[in-house]
Amino acid sequence: MNLHLDRLSPTPLVQQLTDQLQAWIEHQRLRPGARLPSIRTLAKTHAVSPSCVIEAYDRLVASGWLDARHGTGFFVAERKPALPDAEQEAWGEAVDGSWRQFREGFDELLKLGCGWLPNAWRATDELALAVRQVSRGNPADLFDYAPPLGLASLRQQLHKRLERLDIPAGPERILTTHGASHALDLLVRTLLRPGDTVLVENPGYYNLFNLLRAHQVHMLPVPRTANGPDLHALERLLAEHRPRCLFINSLYHNPTGTSLTPKVAYRLLELAREHDLRIIEDDIYADFQEGPATRLATLDSEQRVIYLASFSKTLSSALRVGYLVADAPLTARLAELKMVSSIGTSRFAEQVVGQMLANGSYRKSVQRLRVRLAQHMAKLLGQLEGFGWEVFCEPYGGMFVWVRAPGRDFASLERLALAHGVLLTPGSAFDYQGAANEWLRINVAYAQDVRAQAFLREGGSPQ
Amino acid sequence: MNLHLDRLSPTPLVQQLTDQLQAWIEHQRLRPGARLPSIRTLAKTHAVSPSCVIEAYDRLVASGWLDARHGTGFFVAERKPALPDAEQEAWGEAVDGSWRQFREGFDELLKLGCGWLPNAWRATDELALAVRQVSRGNPADLFDYAPPLGLASLRQQLHKRLERLDIPAGPERILTTHGASHALDLLVRTLLRPGDTVLVENPGYYNLFNLLRAHQVHMLPVPRTANGPDLHALERLLAEHRPRCLFINSLYHNPTGTSLTPKVAYRLLELAREHDLRIIEDDIYADFQEGPATRLATLDSEQRVIYLASFSKTLSSALRVGYLVADAPLTARLAELKMVSSIGTSRFAEQVVGQMLANGSYRKSVQRLRVRLAQHMAKLLGQLEGFGWEVFCEPYGGMFVWVRAPGRDFASLERLALAHGVLLTPGSAFDYQGAANEWLRINVAYAQDVRAQAFLREGGSPQ
Repeated sequence: MNLHLDRLSPTPLVQQLTDQLQAWIEHQRLRPGARLPSIRTLAKTHAVSPSCVIEAYDRLVASGWLDARHGTGFFVAERKPALPDAEQEAWGEAVDGSWRQFREGFDELLKLGCGWLPNAWRATDELALAVRQVSRGNPADLFDYAPPLGLASLRQQLHKRLERLDIPAGPERILTTHGASHALDLLVRTLLRPGDTVLVENPGYYNLFNLLRAHQVHMLPVPRTANGPDLHALERLLAEHRPRCLFINSLYHNPTGTSLTPKVAYRLLELAREHDLRIIEDDIYADFQEGPATRLATLDSEQRVIYLASFSKTLSSALRVGYLVADAPLTARLAELKMVSSIGTSRFAEQVVGQMLANGSYRKSVQRLRVRLAQHMAKLLGQLEGFGWEVFCEPYGGMFVWVRAPGRDFASLERLALAHGVLLTPGSAFDYQGAANEWLRINVAYAQDVRAQAFLREGGSPQ
Repeated sequence: MNLHLDRLSPTPLVQQLTDQLQAWIEHQRLRPGARLPSIRTLAKTHAVSPSCVIEAYDRLVASGWLDARHGTGFFVAERKPALPDAEQEAWGEAVDGSWRQFREGFDELLKLGCGWLPNAWRATDELALAVRQVSRGNPADLFDYAPPLGLASLRQQLHKRLERLDIPAGPERILTTHGASHALDLLVRTLLRPGDTVLVENPGYYNLFNLLRAHQVHMLPVPRTANGPDLHALERLLAEHRPRCLFINSLYHNPTGTSLTPKVAYRLLELAREHDLRIIEDDIYADFQEGPATRLATLDSEQRVIYLASFSKTLSSALRVGYLVADAPLTARLAELKMVSSIGTSRFAEQVVGQMLANGSYRKSVQRLRVRLAQHMAKLLGQLEGFGWEVFCEPYGGMFVWVRAPGRDFASLERLALAHGVLLTPGSAFDYQGAANEWLRINVAYAQDVRAQAFLREGGSPQ
């Protein structure tokens, strides 16, 4: 393959690469199923970044020129699309970078920075069994719409779970959602208007930033420290602005892996009271912890904290089952919006999750996950120290470590990672403004893979 | 039970009834599980409307005082809630009337006006089989997030289905959604701003009206005639306003059951071109029709029509699988919003539907449905004529007939229906402003039930 990329052209390299690959496929009259060079090979032979190749392949998959096959690579598609060029460009623009991890076709690469556990760790037998039981149970669960608040039997189980976390919430304050991001969306649409100002942790959850931006809400960044949000910065922002709410991960913060301390939590609630601030606590990593943990919703006596969680991280991302807890009038308003915007959640999925909560199989499966994660976390922290990486703060559990390698920027780390077959997620993805930085989120569950080990060993050594 | 309702009090009757039932439960120290009077009995003995009793029971279920049991009635709940009164009121206010059909607990009543088929008509064995097959298949379908546009294999099947309808749309223009209402929500959020004006059919889909209202979009009503939207009214509105788009059901319109004629469709597209109007065609009842039908998306040569549909009516409302077809740049923007607002759809549910499309079991099940619906439609139309009802226009298929009984208003019909154990949906629910009228939507699938027959026979006779 001989492509001519012009580095002085006003056309971005990604677009040049996409166009020339497409032209090459056409001119070579390649058979459907012909295999394209690997990302690494193409990047190396044409001296472009692996990101650039990923993006170009991604656009060609999206526009129908290529097929991405599980674990093997990229192939000429069965039938060439007949679309005007303008459409193909539009494609690449919108569904790109930030959703790369969600695209089909990068299975050949180890997603070391991704936000979920490998399927091999999941409770396959238990979930499959629950699915089959529901399929043989009440036909209503296969066919009917769910009621506005969600299935009563699931909310009853969630109520019990919340009681164990010492969060007082009757089923009438619990609303099920299509995952935690949907809960955030319902809250943002109900509580905030364009032009409003809110506090976010930085670094933080990139999809929350996307959501707030889409809703034209201004973000005030509060640096995340090892103990929770930086209280001095928070007090300054509260004195200068009138933010409507604070979004926070108390436990196993994404991406830093840090957890809120009781002292910071107590002061945070005091500040919230003084400044009449609502707090939206995303506790999506809750079940990776057993025993006491510091949660704002547990300490809150004023229903100032809105709590949300989901089963995407611990059980299944495919079912889309999450929930939130708010005061009753707000819950009712959120339920109304939920019905108006999608006529509710999946009754089938809720029955499956409810059944696994009721019969104990969910509890057992997260116990196994906790042990496995703890072992992997301990092992990785030891390795990172040995390899010469800097760790932001050693997490006491959860899925993420936030690390950097002295003297390495992201571009250098990404090249190295791709050379080992590893796909990273850049630290800039977790910055509220997308600012570049040298930090990486590492998912401990993938870190013992031989490719990750080779990358981590080489990345930590002085260049 | 002896309740004292004060018709001169400023407190609404529903609230009086709710409060007094609650007090009565407390004072009688009723055991959990004790059964309450039926809706009919209570309405009769206290001379209130059945709607009023339904609403009160509904509020008490929502606030945790009562349990609603499948097919049997209302019972004192296991544990009494300890909630301040304010919360209970808020409850009843928000999640009430319009979602009544979606609440658990009214199974004792026949939902003659509801918007879905009985479970007994559905493809239980086929769906359960597909669910079990997916549970034994690729673990990715049990666990992974779906890609932004939706699962490629499902979109490929949808592409084939659309080809059969002569709607040209490659998989890259197809976006899966959590049902058709979610598709409408994504479109409204992406295409419209508060203060914009749109055209809606009147009567029409009540949740679309709710959605547009929630988004502060102004609605201009176009009367629905037997042949589609009233073109004279439409032309007048187009001359006077600059609406952003028109929302329409071409086939088996909800609630009137009427279908667009080719002549009206052609003129509609001409008008859309002249006035640069987008059309959003909700084809959710598509699969109740086989063979040629008039669809705007089929005739459209300019990608002016956005097409949407779902599997909620024909296969399962519990899975929440729908989709839309738009031009590629818009599809990409909608995919971005879909990810931002809920990180996508359920991969599991999409795999189940995709499999049933691929193996033909979906096609066979809707063939059965079509025959059964056609038989029931023919039978009911004959009965309605015999019983003295007026039919808006005899539908040639689908699920709905729009009828009225000479000399009867809704209140009178509702009383009669409840006396026969039948729950109606008022015509006002389908008016864009909720205006009262005497029309009813009848779902043909429920009309041969002995309760429906008794109601229809008596309702059509002169009083």
